Amino acid sequence: MGLANITAGPRNEAGIATAIGILGQRFAERLSTGEALRAQHAHTTTYIPAQWPDAVIFAETSDEVQLIVRTCAKHRVPVIPFGAGTSLEGHVNAPRGGICIDLTRMNRVIEVNQEDLDCTVEPGITREDLNIALRDTGLFFPIDPGANATIGGMASTRASGTNAVRYGTMKDNVLAVTAVTADGRHIRTAQRARKSSAGYDLTRLFVGAEGTLGVLTSVTLRLQGIPQAISGGVCPFPSVEAACQAVIMTIQMGIPVARIELLDALQMKACNAYSGLDYAEQPSLFVEFHGSDAGVAEQAESFGEIAAECGGGEFTWTVEPEKRSRLWKARHDAYWASLQLRPGARGLSTDVCVPISQLAACVVETQEDLAAHDLTAPIVGHAGDGNFHVLLLIDVESPAEIAAAEAFVARLNERALRFEGTCTGEHGIGQGKQAYLPAELGDSVEIMRQIKRALDPDEIMNPGKVFAL
Amino acid sequence: MGLANITAGPRNEAGIATAIGILGQRFAERLSTGEALRAQHAHTTTYIPAQWPDAVIFAETSDEVQLIVRTCAKHRVPVIPFGAGTSLEGHVNAPRGGICIDLTRMNRVIEVNQEDLDCTVEPGITREDLNIALRDTGLFFPIDPGANATIGGMASTRASGTNAVRYGTMKDNVLAVTAVTADGRHIRTAQRARKSSAGYDLTRLFVGAEGTLGVLTSVTLRLQGIPQAISGGVCPFPSVEAACQAVIMTIQMGIPVARIELLDALQMKACNAYSGLDYAEQPSLFVEFHGSDAGVAEQAESFGEIAAECGGGEFTWTVEPEKRSRLWKARHDAYWASLQLRPGARGLSTDVCVPISQLAACVVETQEDLAAHDLTAPIVGHAGDGNFHVLLLIDVESPAEIAAAEAFVARLNERALRFEGTCTGEHGIGQGKQAYLPAELGDSVEIMRQIKRALDPDEIMNPGKVFAL
Repeated sequence: MGLANITAGPRNEAGIATAIGILGQRFAERLSTGEALRAQHAHTTTYIPAQWPDAVIFAETSDEVQLIVRTCAKHRVPVIPFGAGTSLEGHVNAPRGGICIDLTRMNRVIEVNQEDLDCTVEPGITREDLNIALRDTGLFFPIDPGANATIGGMASTRASGTNAVRYGTMKDNVLAVTAVTADGRHIRTAQRARKSSAGYDLTRLFVGAEGTLGVLTSVTLRLQGIPQAISGGVCPFPSVEAACQAVIMTIQMGIPVARIELLDALQMKACNAYSGLDYAEQPSLFVEFHGSDAGVAEQAESFGEIAAECGGGEFTWTVEPEKRSRLWKARHDAYWASLQLRPGARGLSTDVCVPISQLAACVVETQEDLAAHDLTAPIVGHAGDGNFHVLLLIDVESPAEIAAAEAFVARLNERALRFEGTCTGEHGIGQGKQAYLPAELGDSVEIMRQIKRALDPDEIMNPGKVFAL
Repeated sequence: MGLANITAGPRNEAGIATAIGILGQRFAERLSTGEALRAQHAHTTTYIPAQWPDAVIFAETSDEVQLIVRTCAKHRVPVIPFGAGTSLEGHVNAPRGGICIDLTRMNRVIEVNQEDLDCTVEPGITREDLNIALRDTGLFFPIDPGANATIGGMASTRASGTNAVRYGTMKDNVLAVTAVTADGRHIRTAQRARKSSAGYDLTRLFVGAEGTLGVLTSVTLRLQGIPQAISGGVCPFPSVEAACQAVIMTIQMGIPVARIELLDALQMKACNAYSGLDYAEQPSLFVEFHGSDAGVAEQAESFGEIAAECGGGEFTWTVEPEKRSRLWKARHDAYWASLQLRPGARGLSTDVCVPISQLAACVVETQEDLAAHDLTAPIVGHAGDGNFHVLLLIDVESPAEIAAAEAFVARLNERALRFEGTCTGEHGIGQGKQAYLPAELGDSVEIMRQIKRALDPDEIMNPGKVFAL
């Protein structure tokens, strides 16, 4: 698609060949230049064309990461960190070639501190594997972006997901990172204390930097106690506005909702068809509350009152795990259900986020836009954060459909800015959103560039992402 | 004191004279070179010697801030932002002279968005004035560092205080800032959406930068709904270890405690003497819970059970505001009570923060250190964060006492690092803590320097703070 910045090159052919030669001797069969592996490590989950690295190295230790970065730095060769490959904006493409560091073998839990509710992990562990490892501690890591992403990737894109409304995003849940920077240093950004005022907040600078300032080698995370009880439910509303009003009131009342997800009528229709359910095909809120037995019941009841006040239909909720899973099935299957609205089509996700007071207006205007342009695209939103995803169902073989989708995305992102929002709530900029960053942040982008140039003057760390230098 | 980096100069005399001449024409009586004002705007709240600016300008608009910075940049003159002057580590000193921008006239509330629970304010408003302005909205700004600091100053030092355990620190509660950078740009770091993955997190970079990367001209803050009910109480414990164990269990159980403050036995003794109270002179926890009527009662009861399990004495608590104020009086008066332990002495505050599992050991070892060196110093801690302040009561006219205090502070900060903590939980580095930053963060400090050099190559923004370039 034309809007993504996938400009290739310039390639440093001599440097790349030299670095591969040197690193090949060190890593032997853990360095591969085979086509299958290179293809697998280029970006494939979206419409953005793949751009292969020249080699993939499976790193197993921080020292190995440092060695790779130092070698690449010496020969001015791009370094692209790779986790689960679930990013959506071309983050792992290699527009100038270079070395992809596959971090999935660095997937150990280094330590868990139960009393402090924290842990330190290597970047290649997935969030699901982390939660399996934590199973016997009574603790869990709450951030859930949907995909089974790695912690390093989630940190690098400042990921969040359904329960950010309660537990925050990666920015709020990373206490410290270690990283290898472009000059080959191995730094630690913070101690393990829960707060600090010691100098610049490098932790937050690396969270969301999309690998452009260094390669993460460990991440120290805040954990949460597994709640004693969970209640969950679903409630239909006569309109998106009514549903959003219920969201606003819920948050204003200080009800500590753990998840509050908006599905529009088309998404509900898709879910009914896909899973054989009989939900009202109206905008609906899926909610979940975490707390004590008494607390989660009180919270669900308070939400029910708010929903009724906002014109909502019957609020069905439960504390029983199996029933709760059934009630939430539509939400969990939303993505796959959407694809069945148009079999054979590819789903292109958008990611705007606006202040919650603007959410209803922004969603409604977006639905009108979709209708006016005859686009099929259900909407799912992390309503408590004002973040919503329009899943455009398009035939990626059709240039006309791609152009129409592209034009829609441009209008959507401009609309989000008009509503004081952002073009990306949780997916990141990568290659796909670069066109929108200057409109959103103006001269701040130049400040970001100055930081990038200072820390990576030869632009070897994941080049071509976030912005063109 | 020797450990603070208060190295003066080099002064750019010609540039300073030129800038004052130019700005004097523009600001007339709002620029002052009078001794009284200059003295008042140098750091006076602690032992660190004052270093006066050459002039103080009372700015009233962002455009004026930009004009001042541009003029100073052109003539390479230091710019020192000034709010309430309550910082504790020499943040507003002018070791190379220059222009102090007094921001207290930029104290407007620019907008309040009740539905979004956010507001945007000018940097010179104090937190108390902000909460007065919010009175009729049902919302409040929770961060409470004790002093009535300005929002700009609190953002710049990454301040927190008693209820950070529930509401986070300034890093968690600033959504965006606008700032004038050293090159004279006026940037906005983020939109108003509650989360974003759009590029580097410049918001968090400016929060805690202590004015060394730019002058804040507005701050967009998250707000909280005023809780329906508050319960509060106090409980004595047989030992610091027992009290800390109760803190850990409270947090592990997921009880959303709003404040949980540790006062050691000496501090309780001081409070009894100062306020005519009869608390047990034992380590005690002061707790507060925010929520629904049922919620705060349930939380207080749960805490009571935990306290009993940990060997605590009677837990006295209430939901009645007046009784609650009485119960908390000792905590509120702690500082003044401490000073009365040694009339005429000056209180020097320390600020280490460690993982909460390490808090008891770190406090106990610190008490032993104080006893071994015959120092009088009560301890108050934000125990839920692992942050504690030792208030050294010393005769600042005695070089021997100053040297002893200095040696103690060095041991304390080294001890905090040994317990995986930080030399500053909430006060910042300023001039006073620079000696400890490299031991804490190693090569990360060099990354900070690279950022500083890139954004402020002539080192005009609050020079001599955080680190020497």
